[in-house]
Amino acid sequence: MSHSSKKTILERLDAGEILIGDGGYLFEMERRGYVAAGVWTPDVNVEHPHAVEGLHQEFARAGSNVLQAFAYHAVWSRTEGRNEINESACRIVKKVAAQYNCLWAGGLSPTRIYGQGGSKKDVQEYFKGQAEIFVRHDCDFLIAEYFHSSEEAGWAVEVLKETGKPVLASLCITSQGDFKGVPTDECAVRLVKAGADVIGVNCKFDPQESLKAVAKMKEGLEKAGLKAHLMFQPLGFHCPDADNKHGYLALPENPFALEPRQLTRWDVHKLTRSAYDLGVRYFGGCCGFKAYHIRAISEELEKERGAKAESSDKHQPFKPMYSSTFGHMERNEEYWMNMKPASGRPFSPSYSKPVKSTLNP
Amino acid sequence: MSHSSKKTILERLDAGEILIGDGGYLFEMERRGYVAAGVWTPDVNVEHPHAVEGLHQEFARAGSNVLQAFAYHAVWSRTEGRNEINESACRIVKKVAAQYNCLWAGGLSPTRIYGQGGSKKDVQEYFKGQAEIFVRHDCDFLIAEYFHSSEEAGWAVEVLKETGKPVLASLCITSQGDFKGVPTDECAVRLVKAGADVIGVNCKFDPQESLKAVAKMKEGLEKAGLKAHLMFQPLGFHCPDADNKHGYLALPENPFALEPRQLTRWDVHKLTRSAYDLGVRYFGGCCGFKAYHIRAISEELEKERGAKAESSDKHQPFKPMYSSTFGHMERNEEYWMNMKPASGRPFSPSYSKPVKSTLNP
Amino acid sequence: MSHSSKKTILERLDAGEILIGDGGYLFEMERRGYVAAGVWTPDVNVEHPHAVEGLHQEFARAGSNVLQAFAYHAVWSRTEGRNEINESACRIVKKVAAQYNCLWAGGLSPTRIYGQGGSKKDVQEYFKGQAEIFVRHDCDFLIAEYFHSSEEAGWAVEVLKETGKPVLASLCITSQGDFKGVPTDECAVRLVKAGADVIGVNCKFDPQESLKAVAKMKEGLEKAGLKAHLMFQPLGFHCPDADNKHGYLALPENPFALEPRQLTRWDVHKLTRSAYDLGVRYFGGCCGFKAYHIRAISEELEKERGAKAESSDKHQPFKPMYSSTFGHMERNEEYWMNMKPASGRPFSPSYSKPVKSTLNP
Amino acid sequence: MSHSSKKTILERLDAGEILIGDGGYLFEMERRGYVAAGVWTPDVNVEHPHAVEGLHQEFARAGSNVLQAFAYHAVWSRTEGRNEINESACRIVKKVAAQYNCLWAGGLSPTRIYGQGGSKKDVQEYFKGQAEIFVRHDCDFLIAEYFHSSEEAGWAVEVLKETGKPVLASLCITSQGDFKGVPTDECAVRLVKAGADVIGVNCKFDPQESLKAVAKMKEGLEKAGLKAHLMFQPLGFHCPDADNKHGYLALPENPFALEPRQLTRWDVHKLTRSAYDLGVRYFGGCCGFKAYHIRAISEELEKERGAKAESSDKHQPFKPMYSSTFGHMERNEEYWMNMKPASGRPFSPSYSKPVKSTLNP
Repeated sequence: MSHSSKKTILERLDAGEILIGDGGYLFEMERRGYVAAGVWTPDVNVEHPHAVEGLHQEFARAGSNVLQAFAYHAVWSRTEGRNEINESACRIVKKVAAQYNCLWAGGLSPTRIYGQGGSKKDVQEYFKGQAEIFVRHDCDFLIAEYFHSSEEAGWAVEVLKETGKPVLASLCITSQGDFKGVPTDECAVRLVKAGADVIGVNCKFDPQESLKAVAKMKEGLEKAGLKAHLMFQPLGFHCPDADNKHGYLALPENPFALEPRQLTRWDVHKLTRSAYDLGVRYFGGCCGFKAYHIRAISEELEKERGAKAESSDKHQPFKPMYSSTFGHMERNEEYWMNMKPASGRPFSPSYSKPVKSTLNP
Repeated sequence: MSHSSKKTILERLDAGEILIGDGGYLFEMERRGYVAAGVWTPDVNVEHPHAVEGLHQEFARAGSNVLQAFAYHAVWSRTEGRNEINESACRIVKKVAAQYNCLWAGGLSPTRIYGQGGSKKDVQEYFKGQAEIFVRHDCDFLIAEYFHSSEEAGWAVEVLKETGKPVLASLCITSQGDFKGVPTDECAVRLVKAGADVIGVNCKFDPQESLKAVAKMKEGLEKAGLKAHLMFQPLGFHCPDADNKHGYLALPENPFALEPRQLTRWDVHKLTRSAYDLGVRYFGGCCGFKAYHIRAISEELEKERGAKAESSDKHQPFKPMYSSTFGHMERNEEYWMNMKPASGRPFSPSYSKPVKSTLNP
Repeated sequence: MSHSSKKTILERLDAGEILIGDGGYLFEMERRGYVAAGVWTPDVNVEHPHAVEGLHQEFARAGSNVLQAFAYHAVWSRTEGRNEINESACRIVKKVAAQYNCLWAGGLSPTRIYGQGGSKKDVQEYFKGQAEIFVRHDCDFLIAEYFHSSEEAGWAVEVLKETGKPVLASLCITSQGDFKGVPTDECAVRLVKAGADVIGVNCKFDPQESLKAVAKMKEGLEKAGLKAHLMFQPLGFHCPDADNKHGYLALPENPFALEPRQLTRWDVHKLTRSAYDLGVRYFGGCCGFKAYHIRAISEELEKERGAKAESSDKHQPFKPMYSSTFGHMERNEEYWMNMKPASGRPFSPSYSKPVKSTLNP
Repeated sequence: MSHSSKKTILERLDAGEILIGDGGYLFEMERRGYVAAGVWTPDVNVEHPHAVEGLHQEFARAGSNVLQAFAYHAVWSRTEGRNEINESACRIVKKVAAQYNCLWAGGLSPTRIYGQGGSKKDVQEYFKGQAEIFVRHDCDFLIAEYFHSSEEAGWAVEVLKETGKPVLASLCITSQGDFKGVPTDECAVRLVKAGADVIGVNCKFDPQESLKAVAKMKEGLEKAGLKAHLMFQPLGFHCPDADNKHGYLALPENPFALEPRQLTRWDVHKLTRSAYDLGVRYFGGCCGFKAYHIRAISEELEKERGAKAESSDKHQPFKPMYSSTFGHMERNEEYWMNMKPASGRPFSPSYSKPVKSTLNP
């Protein structure tokens, strides 16, 4: 099948299709031993390309319609080797996307320049440089994501629109507003006015809070008489105790003791249904989302999508299980969806106090 | 390097070397979409050999000195395709072991026949059939593991010893005793008398309980004037609330909502130190143990082993981290080792009530 | 000392004095076996007057400057015996107030008539009937409390002002607003315009939420250029998980399993300090507040008040303790104020889901 | 009714009657402001006799068949005023016992002399001095309680038996054994051989653990072919996390932040039923047991006892309740007995680490 014959993401969304992106690469690669927390750079694309390919494949098998190049993010400061890393990232993602008939996208994220007070011109110049490689590799669309400032995100969208590719824009904000105090509904309006085709929320806050933020965005668009598709790519960790500025980043457990907060597949089922009912049609996950979480999205929407994830062949959660020492266990959907999983940690509390930021108290 | 020139596991342990095995394949493969929970068979060796290779590599990079063939376990009932699966499992593990200079082992586990009252002769016949393929592929040693009955484990050890390979034997029992009520110290004596070179505990119970079981085994050997190396390959989940017969298998969260129970790397550090102090010299993990848990074993014992895991190059947990929205975080070893991680789940309790077994109430 | 020579509550508050009311009678009397939950009527005033006297004395000894007659509340439907009960309640409270040199007050609470849509005239007529007995017994002031509607509270205040007594008005509302959606700052304005001398919040919601509500009231008064003293008589139970309409009443634990939510004395210390810093000068507690909680208020403000509770002679929390089996324990203020007390209940969660109201969903 | 005509406790127990003692005085009096924690002496008998009378009455109304003089315990060191306190304690308890037709008892507890290595003769001399006042006031029986050493308890029993009164002996020990390592079953044998008519367990450990200890005692008696009635007066706080030497005394929450551990009435129902099924016929509670807990014992055994507590007239827990803001709540026995009450404290864990004893590490 020739690439040009593929329907674009917008054609598909406009036609009412539900699309599923992929999950989080950084946390999973850190746990697999290929990415260093703190530095967080995707050298693995060059050092162990098979490992990246393997994770892309897991997502594709789990039902992802879209894979994202595991490229170097603007936010990381080191510059040596970046081109080589991103070249490799593009080659790998294209290969797996072709293999599984997925779309693929390149992503932009917040810049340090903006944080340091850089001008719109400087920031946009930077974004142009970032986007070039994805366009040269003929990505299917571009995503501006992880933005905690709607202003910077808007600037990114403007740059990305000039490439002629569809543009998705996703903010890391609560239902209250962005990092600079712009209310969430106004953030939505700003993104769409800047040209974004799909807008939404990803990462950093409790998934329930992120969902509220998407709802607020939808309200904003409705009030302004604007239209855009909605996307939702939440964090893979429960953090209702996070502060509304730094989210899970300020939790004392970040990044090496977040395990008890990890979403179950059933948490994802419930989130996905709520997001779908709200009108979200582009789904995915961010930090902490693994292949089985993506599969949970796919399985929750199996009827609506009329499609089944490849790895759902390895998933029969409601079939009785047997163990030689234990015997049969029959557990149905109701059982799992109402499960309040115990932590096995009686010395641990439910909530932590976020630590103070050294930058933005 | 020719295989025959490698030192055997016993030569290495006798020389005082600390050895690290690998982690759990089943749970991780289930989450990656390659193994179906309930069936739990490793068809992935044939269907997606690269995925198995990838996970072996993660463990090898994390510091494993030993990789175990991800072979078909006796406990699984289906028989078609088993040979093909195990052939592939052996080829894959040998390839990665050679690449990372690891030893590799084949494992045996409880049979259904035994559970149904089969004779010693029948059970041992079955074990012989199981072991054949590993010996034919010239494994470095054999492991009898997951056994909840010391009698069946002893029978397995006898069979394995006849192959001329070193034999490790690992039970899934508490510090009280095995499934049939044999006290843990006596279980240890039985295994060593049957010929086991290394004995210990793996899986199923809370890691702290498993460690107590190893301590009890050590006591048993000392009282009996016997000697054997000690191994410890605990479960990757906290479950102090498990019953002392079925362990985590009877928890209501098993197998699809165990996330909040997942050990952190710091839990593994502490367990490893305690086990080392007890005299354990063969380490590893069972269900729920991922590459970063194996790396934690390696890093805890870095000085004692005089060796560093390859993926420790991607791990600087006590270096200050920086995030553009949050700023610097300096967190030292004391910080992490004293962390009581919150679950972010205020509606979840710490403990569950185990469900009733349909086989062994 | 003749009654008329006592300074009034307003003279005292105007002079900058900090006043402390009493705690909750109903819950404590239920637990002592003198009041039936569900019915909640204070028949005990007639049936066991000494028990009421004893509880008044505990509060007085704990530092209460004000005792409230444990009278029949408007909200209770039964009418037979009401006069007799209230006569006895007045006699008892007057006796103890005289003994401990306290002020005493009579209280009014929401009526059923209002809930059923009764007219202002009818509701106020009812209030008049209620207040009569307290005035006849020459109470020091009157309190309108437990009101979840600022409209009904305002009607009550108007009636009470006509008696010539000082009037305190206290709402059971969150920081968002009252039961009918009137914002909390506007509620404050309404009460003061109706004539209330002291306004504030009591009962029903998490104490932290009640404190936020008082802060909101203060804001409302400031914006409106109005003045009133602030009062704070929170619930004695933690319930951050309560809904913002029915508060703890809708918790599944109410009323017979609230124990784990009980405030410690240290919780009260912290609340009192926060309330004081906010400007509150009339303190006390509602359901669940016991004598030792009232003493905690008194001890937190001992310096500011220049007075010590009588029962503080029996309280030396920071003196080392000795037990014959345990030995010495030295625990200072910092220790107790930072304590996060464990529940000893690993099967219990932190939060409950409120149940649905049958009246106001 | 003349005192001599009352049936003795042994006649009643021998006739199959179930008897209920009272609850804990110290903690309750501390919270009411009459006893200082740390010192823990019952000066209140002299200072505020009405307060002691009031608490006795609450217990009597709640179903207690036996009231215990709130006397000065041997363990407290101060000696001045002791006689006066104990005289008053006896007068008060006799008055309430007569009023409610209860038996009354005097109690002995561990001595400092014993802890300091005093001889049997010295310790028994001390006990004689202690018991004299209760005998002079013609108590119905004597209790040796709070003992963590079965040896000292045995010495006390010998002394008490010489008075001719029935003797109850209650230890503060786990199911493992006493403070000096004597196994629990042997402790039971020792007490009965020393002359105890009723033996059992009270205070200090988790109530479930105390119940296991009673079970172990029963086993001990059966093995030894001895007979005695069984008593059970557990702690009013959950503390499965307590160590097995110092119990709740070493918990970091003791004594000023134990609130979240407080038993509910339903916990008492379940404990009482289990204890009854085990054969316990003398019930009661220790530190933390309030009147409504005693009533719960009475209500759980209402049928078996054929008697109803006076304050059960104020308790209709399964009758629908009504609140004006909330509406009807219908909650049956099953609802309450299966309640896992939330703590409303998401920052608090379930378990604490006991602190180190300065005396007995």
